Amino acid sequence: MISRKTFVAVAILVCVGVAYRPALADDYVAVAKVQAGANANPGLRHVPEKFIAGPTAGVSLQEQAIIAAPYIPIFNAHPKDAAEWKALVSRLADAAAKNIPALAKKFDVTVMPITIAGVKCYLVQPTVLPERNRHRLLVHVHGGGYVLGPGLSATREAILLAGFGGFKVISIDYRMPPDFPYPAAMDDAMAVWKEAVKMADPKNMAIFGTSTGGGMTLAMVLRAKDEHLPLPAAIAPGTPWADLTDTGDSYKTNEWVDNILVTWNGWLGDAAKLYAGSHDLKEPYLSPIYGDFRGFPPAILTTGTRDLFLSNTVRTHRKLRRAGVEADLNVYEGQSHAEYYVNPDAPETKEAMTDIATFFDKHLGH
Amino acid sequence: MISRKTFVAVAILVCVGVAYRPALADDYVAVAKVQAGANANPGLRHVPEKFIAGPTAGVSLQEQAIIAAPYIPIFNAHPKDAAEWKALVSRLADAAAKNIPALAKKFDVTVMPITIAGVKCYLVQPTVLPERNRHRLLVHVHGGGYVLGPGLSATREAILLAGFGGFKVISIDYRMPPDFPYPAAMDDAMAVWKEAVKMADPKNMAIFGTSTGGGMTLAMVLRAKDEHLPLPAAIAPGTPWADLTDTGDSYKTNEWVDNILVTWNGWLGDAAKLYAGSHDLKEPYLSPIYGDFRGFPPAILTTGTRDLFLSNTVRTHRKLRRAGVEADLNVYEGQSHAEYYVNPDAPETKEAMTDIATFFDKHLGH
Repeated sequence: MISRKTFVAVAILVCVGVAYRPALADDYVAVAKVQAGANANPGLRHVPEKFIAGPTAGVSLQEQAIIAAPYIPIFNAHPKDAAEWKALVSRLADAAAKNIPALAKKFDVTVMPITIAGVKCYLVQPTVLPERNRHRLLVHVHGGGYVLGPGLSATREAILLAGFGGFKVISIDYRMPPDFPYPAAMDDAMAVWKEAVKMADPKNMAIFGTSTGGGMTLAMVLRAKDEHLPLPAAIAPGTPWADLTDTGDSYKTNEWVDNILVTWNGWLGDAAKLYAGSHDLKEPYLSPIYGDFRGFPPAILTTGTRDLFLSNTVRTHRKLRRAGVEADLNVYEGQSHAEYYVNPDAPETKEAMTDIATFFDKHLGH
Repeated sequence: MISRKTFVAVAILVCVGVAYRPALADDYVAVAKVQAGANANPGLRHVPEKFIAGPTAGVSLQEQAIIAAPYIPIFNAHPKDAAEWKALVSRLADAAAKNIPALAKKFDVTVMPITIAGVKCYLVQPTVLPERNRHRLLVHVHGGGYVLGPGLSATREAILLAGFGGFKVISIDYRMPPDFPYPAAMDDAMAVWKEAVKMADPKNMAIFGTSTGGGMTLAMVLRAKDEHLPLPAAIAPGTPWADLTDTGDSYKTNEWVDNILVTWNGWLGDAAKLYAGSHDLKEPYLSPIYGDFRGFPPAILTTGTRDLFLSNTVRTHRKLRRAGVEADLNVYEGQSHAEYYVNPDAPETKEAMTDIATFFDKHLGH
């Protein structure tokens, strides 16, 4: 038997232990001591638990709200089968598509379904096309992990670039898993590209997209090179999903920090495997970071400091530069994944889209 | 009295509680659940404790070793008085200075003490100056939190740029606290700049520096503007200490991740206050992010994804761009603060220095 006194003493000690959560303590001295001990040898970096306030300096109020938003609820969705994937995709697409007409109207842009080379697309263009852009044509590949964003729902970035840049844009509604895994999406994109280069001079053309669309942008150039097709005059791979595997430092450093993707181990990693099917995730048309970037057109890249894909973006930037390609990197303070085009009224959205438009204007013929 | 059985049961339960450290568990499901709950509302982001392996993909073995190194021991130094600061500064400077002759020899560079406008400097130049750089002159301001790096010890980056770029460099050994707080360092730097612009055409000149040297580079241009002095033709503020206050998202997101600076609350914040003395840390000559960047020369910026100053760097980049200044941002995978010039043999060091040299070559007359 143990005396009540002993029990209470032990219980208090243990409870103090439980309550001792260094990163949450105001006691910097204690945290620093624990951290110094935990990081006194080479190898794994130990990082304590944290509560992090959103940034305010140099960040608009609209963007502050986006940065401080909760995790998006789907981050940890793990659909069990094709039916569950389809239900998830439909639910999100229906909700997103509802906002598109108002967005198009706001930017005085028309969105017209068209079919190119048998592939469903949208022709997105300003109601009055600036003379300077008359002979220019952009091709947009949307994001969504190769599974989200069918139909109208993912035309947002095309509308923004048509609106802020005054460009005519073909947005490709490529086929996706679960029904159509790799290479359907890339086959569709390349089929459209082959037709698109007959609709305008490739010297007056660019390809752009964010996240999965950024990865596809890079993969399309790799494949166009391999297939001896004309290349675009510029590309804008925004926070590109350049590596579908769990490789890249920010997959760890920004895990649980990014409020959009949150972690590779959520729906994102599942989507990678669903898309790849029997293919190796590291095949360059899936993970373009493993491809050869020599001969690529000038590229503008955009990401945020909290982005789970920060490393995808900077690895791509450096690899482009090492290949002798002009590449312009833009990193937004505090933003998680692709938050630079969430709110059309945020100054950062205008800034990011205008930077891309200016970059295209500089590099495209007309 | 409590039975031994009850005690053991309670102890086990409590110990299970103690052992339950979600971020360390392999059980992703449990961590995700805790995280989803903790981040279900707007506001502070909760991030669990982590152990993070260093990146390998696209990172040289030399740089991998730097990234995986323990925290530098001084991160948590808090010298109590001037004597303790001086002892710390001397110890580090003596150790660093010992490596300089070998480094200079390796790069076939001479390092000569000179005095310019009464300020101690070093003239750092290749033993054979390339014809193209004959009429060019760079000015270097070193890092070290405005307190570390006196004398030879902080000429490393000047030697690297003389070596990799073939440039003639004046490296300023400006006065520092505890004896000489702000504005001594800036006064020295400006005195040298006023003389230097008589030694070469400012159109053929650039200013560069890393960390504190990056902040000073920006502050020197602010002050040159205010004093109607000639501006350099280009600048390279490497991971600039643009904000001496604890402001910027990566001061939090990369706290305890960066193995060089580790935290603003270590020696770094103390150094800021020591330097500023009675001045507001947000005065633009101390924290140039609060200055007006309009009219700045083209700038190349360098940082790493784990850098405590990632936000300092990207905030500076964006503010330069918003002011209409050409600005080229480079972010290295996995690197903590200023690790791009630690190891002269790392390919990333050559890459970063060569990029800066190429940028200068593009923008400087000759």
